[in-house]
This record gives sequence, structure tokens and C-alpha cells, in this order.
Amino acid sequence: MKKIQKLLVANRGEISLRIMRTAKEMGIKTVAVYSEADRDAPHVKYADEAVCLGPPPSNQSYLLMDKIIQACKELNVDAIHPGYGFLSENASFARKVTNAGIFFVGPSPEAIEVMGSKLAAKHAVSKYDIPMVPGTEDAISDIPAAKVKAQEIGYPILIKASAGGGGKGMRVVENEAEFEEQMQRAISEAQSAFGDGAVFIEKFITSPRHIEIQILGDQHGNVVHLFERECSVQRRHQKVVEEAPSAVVSDTMRQAMGEAAIKVAKACDYYGAGTVEFIVDEKLNFYFLEMNTRLQVEHPVTEMITGKDLVKEQILIAEGQPLGFTQEDLKIHGHAVEVRVYAEDPRNNFLPDIGNLQTYIRPQGSGIRVDDGFEQGMDIPIYYDPMIAKLITHADNREKAMDRMIRAIEEYQITGIETTLGFCKFVMEHEAFRSGEFDTKFVEKYFTPDKLDIQWTDLELKLLGAAAVELFEKQKNDLRKVKSMQDGTMPRTKWKNRLL
Amino acid sequence: MKKIQKLLVANRGEISLRIMRTAKEMGIKTVAVYSEADRDAPHVKYADEAVCLGPPPSNQSYLLMDKIIQACKELNVDAIHPGYGFLSENASFARKVTNAGIFFVGPSPEAIEVMGSKLAAKHAVSKYDIPMVPGTEDAISDIPAAKVKAQEIGYPILIKASAGGGGKGMRVVENEAEFEEQMQRAISEAQSAFGDGAVFIEKFITSPRHIEIQILGDQHGNVVHLFERECSVQRRHQKVVEEAPSAVVSDTMRQAMGEAAIKVAKACDYYGAGTVEFIVDEKLNFYFLEMNTRLQVEHPVTEMITGKDLVKEQILIAEGQPLGFTQEDLKIHGHAVEVRVYAEDPRNNFLPDIGNLQTYIRPQGSGIRVDDGFEQGMDIPIYYDPMIAKLITHADNREKAMDRMIRAIEEYQITGIETTLGFCKFVMEHEAFRSGEFDTKFVEKYFTPDKLDIQWTDLELKLLGAAAVELFEKQKNDLRKVKSMQDGTMPRTKWKNRLL
Repeated sequence: MKKIQKLLVANRGEISLRIMRTAKEMGIKTVAVYSEADRDAPHVKYADEAVCLGPPPSNQSYLLMDKIIQACKELNVDAIHPGYGFLSENASFARKVTNAGIFFVGPSPEAIEVMGSKLAAKHAVSKYDIPMVPGTEDAISDIPAAKVKAQEIGYPILIKASAGGGGKGMRVVENEAEFEEQMQRAISEAQSAFGDGAVFIEKFITSPRHIEIQILGDQHGNVVHLFERECSVQRRHQKVVEEAPSAVVSDTMRQAMGEAAIKVAKACDYYGAGTVEFIVDEKLNFYFLEMNTRLQVEHPVTEMITGKDLVKEQILIAEGQPLGFTQEDLKIHGHAVEVRVYAEDPRNNFLPDIGNLQTYIRPQGSGIRVDDGFEQGMDIPIYYDPMIAKLITHADNREKAMDRMIRAIEEYQITGIETTLGFCKFVMEHEAFRSGEFDTKFVEKYFTPDKLDIQWTDLELKLLGAAAVELFEKQKNDLRKVKSMQDGTMPRTKWKNRLL
Repeated sequence: MKKIQKLLVANRGEISLRIMRTAKEMGIKTVAVYSEADRDAPHVKYADEAVCLGPPPSNQSYLLMDKIIQACKELNVDAIHPGYGFLSENASFARKVTNAGIFFVGPSPEAIEVMGSKLAAKHAVSKYDIPMVPGTEDAISDIPAAKVKAQEIGYPILIKASAGGGGKGMRVVENEAEFEEQMQRAISEAQSAFGDGAVFIEKFITSPRHIEIQILGDQHGNVVHLFERECSVQRRHQKVVEEAPSAVVSDTMRQAMGEAAIKVAKACDYYGAGTVEFIVDEKLNFYFLEMNTRLQVEHPVTEMITGKDLVKEQILIAEGQPLGFTQEDLKIHGHAVEVRVYAEDPRNNFLPDIGNLQTYIRPQGSGIRVDDGFEQGMDIPIYYDPMIAKLITHADNREKAMDRMIRAIEEYQITGIETTLGFCKFVMEHEAFRSGEFDTKFVEKYFTPDKLDIQWTDLELKLLGAAAVELFEKQKNDLRKVKSMQDGTMPRTKWKNRLL
């Protein structure tokens, strides 16, 4: 069996570094790609070789399939890892890579295609006994028939335009009394918005949780699941806090979800690492949502509780090796939590706060992992997702993992830009999160910017205190500054920048 | 049961930070102590409060028992953690602390006393069935009687002066033919060196391994063991590489060693975290050596494979809590390796190389932990042990943990001083270490400074290459420098300092 000798990572930032670290441990040479904006990025320095793809807009650099494949040929690269985002779920890229005689570290182009289309995915899994959100299989516009169906499904139900998207023509119906009127409105809205009055109806899940199953399959038909990740804490449909295992998933439920996920994978002859996403209702029924045919941002929590290196497994699978373990070999060890640290201002509607990382000191110690792509003194580029780092903690139980996360957040020192660290601490300390009683509406339900006003950490207070004393000594007539700092009327980072 | 509210760590550097991190996770306030040389050290900044003890020589600062206890009273501290070294195995300190009504996070003064004396320890465990190195119980000077005893024990045997120390009067006897002559010499040597010709004889272990068992006992008589650590790679009787589990310990041997260690602990009514050290011979017989009544430097490898936080357990035990788990709950997960990174020059007989940490960038990623007490730009003080950091890796098996360690060592960037990183990489790559076939003579047997000349990492070579190109452009007439760099005739750090 051919062993991969040199791997190009068709990505940037933390995930590029993370993949190359595993490659180095496996004795595989690494090639980085970069845009002109990333010339001095750590992932470029870390690689054995690096290729500039072009100017920062991704369609002129990170998305240039042919240029990437060309670079592989010139540098004798025998495998490409696409990371997440960019070209990772692009079936034509996977096909081009394979046709060029290069290993694609990911699933087959066919699997990417099937799971990339909601309709094709639904069709593919229909032969299997996978729970789906109850609803009409075909679009309807016959109101009385729809009413009968709605009764079967049970209220509340959701009406959505079959041609729709972006929430248009979507209506929640709480009870039968208002069904007809809402249905009529939905149909006419769909008619005027899309020129097609056909609608689907399905069960509306009032308090949904997002729980996903990590799977690994080899090219010999073996598929295992690596348990679940709970990703319900989201902001604008973007996951911000993830954990494994979930606080609400029992052993029985875990087994059922795992088996369903394996069936989904088998429905598309899946190999590689993949994630089967489920929506879970208040009664802990779970329904298949979609499958992501790549490494997930939040994969580290699974690594922490299983001891498996998912990137290593991906590489071995791409080489054609059979899985080195069975379902029975996999066990959950303790609990892991991940928070995504963004260069965003949670006091200002989470708007990106680009700038220079004047101070950047990571937390350390047992059970802490930081996956990032920055060093102190670097600028956060405006062109890409403003995620600075993923901060992951692991401990022998959920409470300890959360306490460790709070400690790690307090230890993380970032100045120069606003970050979501304080927001993440708010989540970790919130009783709804700690109790496990939360859903995807956690952020809108509980978070307001004023919740952050108590988020100065002890360390920050000490640093500020010391700086304030110094300031006081230097310019005794400027006491007003210290006062406004104490009032919290001046944004934290501005103070830090001024004082430290 | 009284909960500890505020903990003073009577130590410095990495272990002080490591203990405070756990305290923070437990919601316990922290107090640091420091000498004038450590005023700006990270452990001082990290604590909620800090107390200066005096000038750098330890007997004027870190060893001042009364001053430390006084500080506790002034700051309402209710517990002291002594770390390792300094006052950690000082029974009178433990007694003073307890008498002052402060929790001592460690064993009873009596246990410290018993295990602090080889004779008392031997006596204490004699009631139990603990394997000891075969030898005479009492000193002898009757040569014919000794010869009979030697035959019973089996050659090679070791003769040592009962009043001795530091290797004086110690002789190895390979076979019976040379016994009488060596015995006479040993007796007369002992007579002239110590004024006492009495000698012991015991089995000489040709190829000894150092394997120790971590134990935890509560104040209610429960004692468990947390498996073994192999610490055979030593330099001048100082451990430099540790791992858990050992490459040679089978399940049966582990259980036997664990049971022996628990008996040793019970022999002195031990509570807290402790380590029972064994010497292991070529045939994997193990013999009790001594018990260390404190947290060990190498405790992280045990934390990595058990998922337990030993400092947290120490604190709970000090509060009087019963152990929260049984022997059956403890399992080994994967494999962990630790290397101690010293500010020493392995090319120059490991002499300390004090100076400024001009570059200090830690490795990152999954399964990596760095416990240190330094930040970039700091000076390594001359007054203390020159250990910069403990670098620990964890993976699902021994080979992967070693590969990860090599990757981490290559990623660690330290300039400004020489370090033992290259030496550690030499150990990780050596076939004797990788195969598990090594003993405490590993370093003297295999290591010579010229072994390091191939230790340039890829990253270093790239940095040097880039710097060399720049240099070349700047001063084309200075090509000789680049040449001597390539020859390796100039020490690595000097080059880095000059070039980077």
C-alpha cells in the first residue's frame, strides 16, 4: 500500500497548522499554500515548503483548484488535505485531485455530491430507517389535505415554500384554529416570491438542540462512530461553544444516534471522517438534518474524549488502510468543551474587530489545548473568518471541564482587539448551560451586552490596577481616567491599550 | 467539612503556577511567595496575592518557614502547598503549619519523618511483605560469614560501608574468586574513611531500571495506586525523561508493584499523594528503594494517562474528603512521555547556560502540555534549578507519544541560551529508548555530544537558511560565516542569535 510522503494543505490558519502537526508526527513532509495577505502567517512558516497562490480574495487564491494541483505536480506532492471551508466540500475539486493521481484526504466525489444536496441526501438515506423530521414528502397546495396531514404530524407545525430559502414563506402554526389562514398566507407569499405556490409542511421543533455524530469509515466498508458533539450554543446559526459528550444524551440514545449515523454513511458508501448532524427536540427525539463531508471545526472535542487523532485517521484512510480499531474499542474518557474565540466585539453586536494582536498569551496547563494560527504582534486579516483560536479543555467530568475552561479564559491574554472571550465565559458560567438545559436559542434568550460588564477577570483587574497606580503616580491630575475606567464607561480594550 | 478558601504555594516557577491553576479551577484564592530574584516571575503575576520573602538565596527566602506561616496569618490563608523541593519534605515545616491551624497539603509530619530516613523506612515496611534488594540485615566484618551470605545472594554483589555515603567504600564483586580481596579492601577503606569497618553486602543490580508507583491515600485509610512511571533515563542521578506506563511492566507486574506500594503507604499511615520508588533488575524483579512524600516533578505523565488532577486530589485529601474513586475506577488511557527541558549545554557536559530567553515559543496542538514558569524575554535566574520547562505528550500508544514528542521538540523555539531539547530528541529517537530496552545507564552508555550535531530541526534549518540568505545579500563577502554554520563548527544558539 502506498504511503503518503508529502501532503499539501489547501487551507490556512489554525486548521492548516493543526493538520501539518499531525503530518509531521507521521513523518510526512508538508506544503502550505497562502495568499499574499498570509505571507507571514504561522502556517506558512511551519510547513516544509510553501506556495503563494495569489491576492487575498479567496477566489484569487485559496479557491484556485488548478493552481493548487499544479503546485502539487511541481513539488511532487502526493496528497491534498482540504481542511474545512474553502474547497473541502467541492466535489469537482476532489475529482480533479483524484484524476491528477493525487490522494484526496476526504471522501469520494460522489459522496460529497450526494450529501451536498439536501434532496439527494434525503433520497439516499430514504432506503434506511433514519428518523427524519415528520412532514409531507411532496409539496402540496391543497389546504384540506394539508390540514389532515398537519393533524397527523401534531402542532406546532412549520409551513415552508418548496422553492424557498432564507426563511421566506416560512410560517409557524401553533394550533389547528389558525392553520387555514397561515397556509393561505404561506401559499400566496410563496407564489409572489418564487412564482410557485407549492409548500411543504413539517413538525416545528420549538426547542431544538443541535447534536452531531462523528463517523470514520475506511475504503473497505468499515464504519464506526466516535460519539456525539453537542453544538447547540449558536449565534446567527454559527456554532460558538461545543462539547462532547452531550449533557442530555444517554447511553441508549447515543447508541441509537450512532447507529443512525453509520447508516447515513453507508447510504453514500462514505469513507473518511464525516459528521452526521441531527436536530433533537424537547423529548429527545432526534431527526437527521444533513451530513458534513469533511473535518469539522469542532473536531478537537471528539479527539479529547476518544484519544484518537482524526487527521491521522483521515490520512490512513486516504492511503487505503483499514481502520485500526472497532466500535467496541472506542470509549468516552471524561468530557471536553470547546469555545471559538473570535475577533469580534460582543458589546457591538459581534461585529468583527480587526486589528493588531498587541498581547497574545495563551493559557496553559493540564487538559488545555489551543488551536490557533496567530502569534503576538500579528494583524488579524480582514479577508477571512475572524476566528482567532479554538480553546479546548478536557477533564474527567463536565463540571470540571467547564471550570477549567473558565480558568483558561481568565488566563488568556489578548489586547489590541475585542474578542468573544468574555462572552464565552458568560456561557460557561450561565446556569442554563451548566445545567444542560439549553437549546439553539441560548444566545438570543440569555445574552445581552450588559452581561459582560462583570467580565473583568482577576488578572485583568490586577494588571489594570497596577497600571492605574503607575498612571496615578505619573500624572496625578489625570485621576478622571482611572475613575472612568472604574465606571466601566470606557471599553475595556481601549483602556488596556492606553494603560498597559 | 471545612473547604479551603485561600492557598499559599510555598514554592516558585512551574510547580507554583501548576498548583495555582488547579486552585483557580477549584475556586480557591491563591497566594504566591517570591524571592527578590523572582519579583517579575509568572507565578507571582498569576497569584491573587503575593508576598516577597527576601533575597534570592533560598535560606533567606523560600526556606523561611516562620516568615511563610506569618504571611499566611496576615493574609488569612488556610492552606499551604509546598510543591516539590524546598520545604516539601520537611517534617518540622509540616508540623509548624499544622500547629498554626493551617492545612498542610501533604502527608502527616510523622509519615514524612519515617520515609525521610532510609533506616526508619526499612524498619517500617519490614512487617509487610515488601521485596527489598537481597542483602545482609546487619553490618558484618567477619569475612568467612560474609562469603557464605554472598553465595546465598548470588554474584555480582555490592559491598558498602554501613557508615558510608557518596560511593565511598563501595565495591562491586563479580565472582567468588575475588570476594575475599575486595571485602578486605572495603573494610579497610571503610575503617580509614569512617573509623568504622562494618560493611553491608547486597545484590548488585547490573542493569537497573527506576520505576515508581504513584499512590493517593485519604485520611480515612483508603489508598489507591495510579500505576507506574518509568524514570530510568537519568543524568547524574537526575531524571530527564519519564513515561507512563513503562514499556516493560506487564499487567501482572503492575498489579504486584501497585499492591507493594500500597503496603508501603499503609506502613506509615500515609495520606496525600506519594511515590514509592523501586529498583527493577534485568529479570524484572522489583525491590523497594524509598518513598517520596510529595508531588513529583514527573507527576504530569500520570495525570495524562489517568485523567486525574493530582493537585486537586491532594487538596481534597487535605480538606479531609474521602477519595472519590476506587482502584477499580482507575484505568490507563494511552501513553504519556515527559522530557525536562533544562537551560544547560549538552555539548559542554550539561553545564548550566544561564541567560536571556530571547525567543521562547512553545509547541502546541493535541496531546501536548507544557508546564513552565517563564515567558519570552525573561532571564533564567542563576540561583535555582535551571529547568525551563516540562514538556509532556500524550497519545494512544507509546510510539505515537514519542513521535508527538519529537514533533513538539522540533516546534519548541528557544534562543538566547543552550537547552537540552536536542538531547531530549536524541533520547526519543534512540533505538534503545524506542525499543524499551534501556536502564539507568542509558545516558552514559549512548550519549556523546557529537550525537547532537545532526539535531538541527527542519524549522531551525529553514530559519537559518532564510537568515543566511539575508546575510548573504547584505554582506556577500562574509560567506565564511554561512560556511561555518553549515559545518556545524559554530554552536547553534550563537548562530541563531547572530542570524535571527
